[in-house]
Amino acid sequence: MEHLKALIRDVPDFPTRGILFRDVTPLLRDPGAFAEVVQTLAERYRGQRIDAVAGIESRGFLFGAPLAMALGAGFIPIRKIGKLPGEKVSREYALEYGTNTLEMHRDAARPGERVLLIDDLLATGGTAAAAAALLGDVGAEVAEIAFVVELTLLPGRAALAGHAVHSLLTY
Amino acid sequence: MEHLKALIRDVPDFPTRGILFRDVTPLLRDPGAFAEVVQTLAERYRGQRIDAVAGIESRGFLFGAPLAMALGAGFIPIRKIGKLPGEKVSREYALEYGTNTLEMHRDAARPGERVLLIDDLLATGGTAAAAAALLGDVGAEVAEIAFVVELTLLPGRAALAGHAVHSLLTY
Repeated sequence: MEHLKALIRDVPDFPTRGILFRDVTPLLRDPGAFAEVVQTLAERYRGQRIDAVAGIESRGFLFGAPLAMALGAGFIPIRKIGKLPGEKVSREYALEYGTNTLEMHRDAARPGERVLLIDDLLATGGTAAAAAALLGDVGAEVAEIAFVVELTLLPGRAALAGHAVHSLLTY
Repeated sequence: MEHLKALIRDVPDFPTRGILFRDVTPLLRDPGAFAEVVQTLAERYRGQRIDAVAGIESRGFLFGAPLAMALGAGFIPIRKIGKLPGEKVSREYALEYGTNTLEMHRDAARPGERVLLIDDLLATGGTAAAAAALLGDVGAEVAEIAFVVELTLLPGRAALAGHAVHSLLTY
């Protein structure tokens, strides 16, 4: 998969000074590379029972929705606060400054369903930990948490201790 | 396609009082229905040259990303202001109160490329018109603008005059 790194663009000081942003949009724009990412993930999970793929807004949607299609599974959007209508569960998580909240429909998954959670990038792991907690709140089992890119210098895996974690590309 | 309406949930007074929100999340959660939507759209465009599919943040990502995969095309995210790093084009559009801004990478499409634009729902058409204008700003041709749901009581088609518009389900 290392050749895919040529399609991940480094953007210094985004969104704030001192952050090196890994921009996956060139990878999405390349049909072969985008398909390779989705198919490689699909192969990993095809033998397992995956009832749904949950993607974290917004970039998790870009990989999670086609992965759900490839696996013949349903898709669950996990969104920022205020975006989903109706009955929800919610989890707050810490940012460097302040907090953020993720929400999921209460009926998005039933107890005992196996859900694959996906996002584009694992950094501190705070967002993914909150998303996994939402799945736990409704009684679903997190089959694995998958990322396209993992920043291994940050403690993301530690924040997700207790969950199986998989990433395609590491920096 | 009318049977799919059973999987679109009506939520009164969301996001604000007086709005009847059409929630597509039950459709996404149903593997067969989600695949039917994407495959039906893919069949419509398969004979044409489509260089990329552009989806509007966030629900346009959910249908646009798997549609791009199905067509063997690249995917272009059109996002709310401040989300994309690097060189961008931007367009402001009117809301009921105030304005919003959409952005797209300047290198997301090249002059003459044919791009299919997709979003989940056509209401007033303001968002889609701004997204189509961004594609025009970089010289790309909008092959068609496709929606899963169209609210025909609103003047969305008029706002998109000059573009081919297609929707799967109408209310």
